[in-house]
Amino acid sequence: MGYPQTSPEVPRIDAAPEATHPTWQEIAEAHARIAPRIHRTPVLTSQMMDRLSGARLFFKCENLQRSGSFKIRGATNAIFSLSDEDVRQGIVTQSSGNHGAAVACAAAWRGAKAWIVMPKNAPNVKREAVEAYGGIVALCEPTMSARKETAAKIQAETGAALVHPYDDDRIIAGQATAAKELLEDIPDLDAILAPVSGGGLLSGTCLSARNMRPNIMLFGCEPAKANDAYLSMQTGELQPLDSSDTIADGLRAPLAPRTFAILRRELSGVLLVSEEEIVAAMRLLWERMKIVVEPSSSIVMAPLLRKGGLDSLQLPARADGIAPKIGVILSGGNVDLSALPFGKG
Amino acid sequence: MGYPQTSPEVPRIDAAPEATHPTWQEIAEAHARIAPRIHRTPVLTSQMMDRLSGARLFFKCENLQRSGSFKIRGATNAIFSLSDEDVRQGIVTQSSGNHGAAVACAAAWRGAKAWIVMPKNAPNVKREAVEAYGGIVALCEPTMSARKETAAKIQAETGAALVHPYDDDRIIAGQATAAKELLEDIPDLDAILAPVSGGGLLSGTCLSARNMRPNIMLFGCEPAKANDAYLSMQTGELQPLDSSDTIADGLRAPLAPRTFAILRRELSGVLLVSEEEIVAAMRLLWERMKIVVEPSSSIVMAPLLRKGGLDSLQLPARADGIAPKIGVILSGGNVDLSALPFGKG
Repeated sequence: MGYPQTSPEVPRIDAAPEATHPTWQEIAEAHARIAPRIHRTPVLTSQMMDRLSGARLFFKCENLQRSGSFKIRGATNAIFSLSDEDVRQGIVTQSSGNHGAAVACAAAWRGAKAWIVMPKNAPNVKREAVEAYGGIVALCEPTMSARKETAAKIQAETGAALVHPYDDDRIIAGQATAAKELLEDIPDLDAILAPVSGGGLLSGTCLSARNMRPNIMLFGCEPAKANDAYLSMQTGELQPLDSSDTIADGLRAPLAPRTFAILRRELSGVLLVSEEEIVAAMRLLWERMKIVVEPSSSIVMAPLLRKGGLDSLQLPARADGIAPKIGVILSGGNVDLSALPFGKG
Repeated sequence: MGYPQTSPEVPRIDAAPEATHPTWQEIAEAHARIAPRIHRTPVLTSQMMDRLSGARLFFKCENLQRSGSFKIRGATNAIFSLSDEDVRQGIVTQSSGNHGAAVACAAAWRGAKAWIVMPKNAPNVKREAVEAYGGIVALCEPTMSARKETAAKIQAETGAALVHPYDDDRIIAGQATAAKELLEDIPDLDAILAPVSGGGLLSGTCLSARNMRPNIMLFGCEPAKANDAYLSMQTGELQPLDSSDTIADGLRAPLAPRTFAILRRELSGVLLVSEEEIVAAMRLLWERMKIVVEPSSSIVMAPLLRKGGLDSLQLPARADGIAPKIGVILSGGNVDLSALPFGKG
């Protein structure tokens, strides 16, 4: 990493005077709000993965979450935070993937219409997932500007409430509940690894983890082919990401100022991962842990499979002298089984 | 079903005077013996699967078990029941699949050698699993007689202790602990479905379930292409199974007298499933529940996906008037990702 790692003596988040993010209280409220509607996902362990990594790993399985990813946490929190009046005209969002399905699902629970703006080139399987939850798919050209414009147009025409995929405190507070549950189950983790794209999950993870375990180290995992978070952390300024064709289709969005501000303060580092490493880790998790994870999830395992990968995290030695305990957030499992990247033999 | 279903007024198993099977006490002892070494696997639920079946389903995920299947329960119980003297010369068994890997794994925990007799045509992936746990693979001709003879020869030459895949009370007691955990977690199930091949898992399931919830209904799921359990129940006499090429490669073995005796007394019915239904259910579980299950596991979901499938089980109405609660044992997740039965598109 080319930038300094977070000092272990950082203050608890609620003590930070410049806080412009969900408070611990808001995260706890989000958890209470969504808990009756979502799964408390299991935390799995694997002797094989421990042996391969040299650490003791705890896998928070958000691939087993409702709608197939952690996105239902933020979407449910945002949509159930709205008043009846707010949702009367429906919900609108833009997403090429899991957030769209999550919003469609949570809107249906709320009895609200949901318009999901998706690029024309989004995979059929993602479109079908939105429609299976009763969402209305609005197709647009596959550019970020077309997506924003189309969502704004629908909002203007219908009066629907906009729910951004990550640049929203209610979304971040919802995503923060995954790490909250993980640390409730395994309180003495030394580090947590989570994928980073727009930063909703990772910034929420930072907020919960820093509050519950102040000295924990926190890492984002990012495709080398979509490395805006890495560059932003390195330069100290938010870097753009025009587009990316990484196989990790959930990790093609850029950070927002809101999420970057949290990451800049809390994150220990961003780990870049190659396409080949993402696919190899995915196959390993399917074969050995018997769980279906998408490339955007398997990315978190990849740095731990490298020779010297664990050492490169520079975790402090544990007082009890045992191998480090690392939480790994497996974010989702929505893949097209007809187009798997596994070769024959 | 062509034979009468078990009356709900059956006595608790320990009261049966003709009992020739593990007692409840032995099952509890098996559980205490293996619990420190195995996973307590999670019980997953899915709104989607509930909607498709009309029931409320509780999936006991033995695909997430150590060694990739429930087989580690019986193997661990059998091998840790042996004395140091018994295991000094090692363990020998015959298996083309999950039992072989489980014995290799449990023997390694015990510090014992393990010879696994496998047919020459066993898939490479199964052979590699045995070897990964340190087992010694002994290949033989792909017939049941050659497998038995080879195992007997190794036993004679080495003095290794024979651990049969299912015709063994210690194995049945171990496999019984999966249903025991399931009913500890979800006590008010109306029925349990489990796959049936040699009958170790299903007979163990019957023993635990009948003891913990006397009026529960219990079903075996069997490939139509390997229907010896169905025919045995129908005729009241143990029927042979010479060979089968069902895709459910874990379900190609015949019942043993020991397991048949238990099933005959406790089972409500055997549900036959086609090859196409097995593959369709497998794909559905992977896609929707994000778990890797092998065909021998997905078979239990198939009868519930049929039109009228739930009604055909003839479960009694619940006193609380809600939809029936059904436990589904997903037995394993060992599949070759290079040879998946999913077509393109």
